[in-house]
Amino acid sequence: MFSGFETYIKEQANLNDHEVQLMRSMAVERSLRRREFLLQQGQVCRYKIFITKGLLRAYSAGGDGSEHIVQFSPENSWITDPESLDKGSPSNSNIDALEPSEVVLWTKKDLHYLAANIPGLKAYFDKLISRSSYMFRQRLLSAISLTAEEKYEEFIKKFPHLLERVPLHMVASYLGVTRETLSRIRRTQLIRK
Amino acid sequence: MFSGFETYIKEQANLNDHEVQLMRSMAVERSLRRREFLLQQGQVCRYKIFITKGLLRAYSAGGDGSEHIVQFSPENSWITDPESLDKGSPSNSNIDALEPSEVVLWTKKDLHYLAANIPGLKAYFDKLISRSSYMFRQRLLSAISLTAEEKYEEFIKKFPHLLERVPLHMVASYLGVTRETLSRIRRTQLIRK
Repeated sequence: MFSGFETYIKEQANLNDHEVQLMRSMAVERSLRRREFLLQQGQVCRYKIFITKGLLRAYSAGGDGSEHIVQFSPENSWITDPESLDKGSPSNSNIDALEPSEVVLWTKKDLHYLAANIPGLKAYFDKLISRSSYMFRQRLLSAISLTAEEKYEEFIKKFPHLLERVPLHMVASYLGVTRETLSRIRRTQLIRK
Repeated sequence: MFSGFETYIKEQANLNDHEVQLMRSMAVERSLRRREFLLQQGQVCRYKIFITKGLLRAYSAGGDGSEHIVQFSPENSWITDPESLDKGSPSNSNIDALEPSEVVLWTKKDLHYLAANIPGLKAYFDKLISRSSYMFRQRLLSAISLTAEEKYEEFIKKFPHLLERVPLHMVASYLGVTRETLSRIRRTQLIRK
């Protein structure tokens, strides 16, 4: 699993072999079954997780059994609850696997040590946090400004391959529209074609 | 205007007098009339703006004349289009003043210089970016999971003083609900009381 991460990080950040070996020495590898949890709402998030294979999601569960998906994380992406990890506060989301997955993860303490001792990694994490912030800002803007149909079209454009891997009710939950609305939109689009 | 910023930054970040003077030497002070723009959609955002007095907002305008408010920034807060500032790409939002305001701003180039030469400022900006990311993540979760009424109640709790300073249609635009829905919610709440 680490070799998948190694290929990725060497493309993304300016790290030498010694620095990659230091990351490896602190990495924990995990295989996840479908629907296995890495974080449950109310727990403190202790890891930053890199997905080398499969698909994870972060979601918040409502008291009525509803699920609100904050993030899908396929292979070659990161997932965590950044605020819970940072502050040590209880998480407001769950993280689980939607497919059998392989991940590499680091504790907060080890991440601090690595970022403090590997300048290229610190620069990469800074970029990652900025990108995540832009992404959530943009998604918020979409959430408050687009129609349900526009939201769905934006999703298809941004994540063309996720549609085949994720059940439709989860796409609805990610977009913040009801299943019924999303089904209606898809029927209308099929008729148009 | 700078003195307002100086008081703020000394509370928030670990800066010595020399470092504050360095920031002052690169700061641009501006007074803004109500409805004066600091950024228009499509332009590249060139500044990070600190508000010492008044109230600014960032919003995106739809082709149909609709406005979608991404952020309200009262005194002692920052506003910018972070992605446009960072990448030099056209902004998807406007920034204007909702009240006569006083601001201090820095160009991207000067900010880079300051952050590179003042470790306490770099640490403060890192924290600011993280906080902003948490805030947008949380707001996105609210946008996709809460009812219109819950969104309004959350807004009142988080920003009790903004309600008196911002017209209701802008609160609706910030929450991503229609004016009619927001008026209905307020009427229902008044009747309950």
